[in-house]
Amino acid sequence: MATSNQERVQEFAPLENDLLLRAARGERTERVPVWVMRQAGRYLPEYKEAKGDKAFFATCRDVELVSRLTIQPIDRFALDGAIIFSDILIIPLALGLTALNDPGQGPVFADPIKKPEDVDRLNPNFDIIKELGYVYESITLTRQKLKGRVPLFGFTGAPWTLMKYMIENLGAGPNPNAARRFLIEYPAAGEKLLKILTDAIVRHLVEQVRAGAQIVQVFDSSGGELGPGLFTKYELPRLQDIAYKVKQEVKKQGLELIPMVVFAKDAHYATEQLATIGFDVVQIDWTQNPTHARRLAGTKVTLQGNLDPVMVFGTDDEIRHNVKEMIQKFGTQRYIANLGHGVMKETNPDKLKVFIDAVHTYSEEINALS
Amino acid sequence: MATSNQERVQEFAPLENDLLLRAARGERTERVPVWVMRQAGRYLPEYKEAKGDKAFFATCRDVELVSRLTIQPIDRFALDGAIIFSDILIIPLALGLTALNDPGQGPVFADPIKKPEDVDRLNPNFDIIKELGYVYESITLTRQKLKGRVPLFGFTGAPWTLMKYMIENLGAGPNPNAARRFLIEYPAAGEKLLKILTDAIVRHLVEQVRAGAQIVQVFDSSGGELGPGLFTKYELPRLQDIAYKVKQEVKKQGLELIPMVVFAKDAHYATEQLATIGFDVVQIDWTQNPTHARRLAGTKVTLQGNLDPVMVFGTDDEIRHNVKEMIQKFGTQRYIANLGHGVMKETNPDKLKVFIDAVHTYSEEINALS
Repeated sequence: MATSNQERVQEFAPLENDLLLRAARGERTERVPVWVMRQAGRYLPEYKEAKGDKAFFATCRDVELVSRLTIQPIDRFALDGAIIFSDILIIPLALGLTALNDPGQGPVFADPIKKPEDVDRLNPNFDIIKELGYVYESITLTRQKLKGRVPLFGFTGAPWTLMKYMIENLGAGPNPNAARRFLIEYPAAGEKLLKILTDAIVRHLVEQVRAGAQIVQVFDSSGGELGPGLFTKYELPRLQDIAYKVKQEVKKQGLELIPMVVFAKDAHYATEQLATIGFDVVQIDWTQNPTHARRLAGTKVTLQGNLDPVMVFGTDDEIRHNVKEMIQKFGTQRYIANLGHGVMKETNPDKLKVFIDAVHTYSEEINALS
Repeated sequence: MATSNQERVQEFAPLENDLLLRAARGERTERVPVWVMRQAGRYLPEYKEAKGDKAFFATCRDVELVSRLTIQPIDRFALDGAIIFSDILIIPLALGLTALNDPGQGPVFADPIKKPEDVDRLNPNFDIIKELGYVYESITLTRQKLKGRVPLFGFTGAPWTLMKYMIENLGAGPNPNAARRFLIEYPAAGEKLLKILTDAIVRHLVEQVRAGAQIVQVFDSSGGELGPGLFTKYELPRLQDIAYKVKQEVKKQGLELIPMVVFAKDAHYATEQLATIGFDVVQIDWTQNPTHARRLAGTKVTLQGNLDPVMVFGTDDEIRHNVKEMIQKFGTQRYIANLGHGVMKETNPDKLKVFIDAVHTYSEEINALS
């Protein structure tokens, strides 16, 4: 691994816009940084043109194409961060599940987890460079091409969310609650699967940092449905583990310490806990009132979020009004503006620009007054 | 309408078990009443046998069969309430949408709402007895057959949830956020649709009470995704309207005043508000901590809920432990025990019995101590 690292690590250009990293570390910022979840994606005509008919997972593996897709929104908008184009389901694939279809095209896995013995089929000791090296190459190439314009995010799915997708097999018809039920019916196998995933996630994040990621986000997109009992028992300790182990390993390898973001969507009940387990930033979805979230999270973490993605379908004036209200509620410090979930594929890019520009305009205005 | 009412209203046997109604009205109860959402359904072998191959919407229209299905769980378990077997989507059908498939069998509507002008296609002044008379006949027949063993619930979907289903057309492939987007893109048409639905819901609830329903529940199953801003603006005033108008109309017609329950699933942010808009009972989903929900709701409403439906897949001891903890948190007064969502079709009825019996056992134990 040391060799491949030395091969990969490059001299990167100095960072010109460090607003997002400063906000994540709790340093003072002159305006609120902004980025958008799924900002490299289907709502952009240039994305559709560059990707063409190429399948989704194949696109993720095409290093040059990934770097181009990642930079497209940076060229178009005044964003303060880029996020590597990739997918959370590449970890289940690396663990040995077989892709049947791309996400959104039917059941994703040919061999989802159904029974405890299916967990034993997985290969926890997979060769991470062989299986996921394309992600790290993409990160290095993208960071080179970015030339320090903005910092680059790496990311991963969280253990529970990956477990849910491996069991419920997205697109294979309704299978609601099957993963949560698995935890209750087969707690030992559930724990085992979560541990395998946690270990893979830690390795995947560390490799992304080694390759050049300057901040990372953990997406627990289905976190909310666990409810306070199961979330506290099964997921929270693992999220804490991930923050601790990634930072420890990054330090051990002499890499630069990077801020970490956690997003447990719909886990309104866990905001207070999520602010105390080693992450620098907690992403808030649109169903939480920012004032309430700040009260729960305290002042020792940065908050990120949370405009409802449908709000960018409003008029320009409505978008600006909503952005202003959002910034007033979150405040201009220890805050990174974002939507409360990924940008929708039907979004008009010009409307997203109104959102992004309004964050800069209003936060500078408010800061100038204070 | 007065005529059809006189035809339908019957002498009903006096109520033997009024525990649930007393809890709903805030009167003291010697033990905690319990019922289960979707208690008449696919997890019961006798349901599958009685329904056979009959289509779902056709089953809803078969008055004799509906009464049998409704009473099946009452015969099997020590439940404190029955709920009429029906569906929330019958109101969109009454308004003029065409059923293409049964729920779960593909897209439900042949003609979902896509554009503002589709709202004008609806027939708000539909003949409610002609379109939905089978529900009221089923309620009257079921109440006769119940002979006062337990009170009978009527129910309806909430305006927003029905609007969402009419736009996103369940089973027609992923169409996430389309209804919420409709509210932002076409606010006037959205308001109009919500008003049409609210009026239909009020009429449907009043007719159910006239037919013999002793308590009614409003299911806002998709309430949570609105988030605090849209929920407060669009849905909360309509829920308040429903509670007010149904009670007013029931009083005007000289019918017995019935308690009303509201369930806005995932609307964690609205618990405090939901407790103050005229409903007697607020159902809590499993993602809310009962202690927290009680603090938000205050002591002037009854709470209902909230064990995670997957918890009945645990061992008998685990189920009993979870029930005990739930009752300790909610307290034994102003409380109706239930799951936090509908019972799952894979549920073992014997396990559900453990849940139901444990509610009675532990609440009597706790009450005996106090």
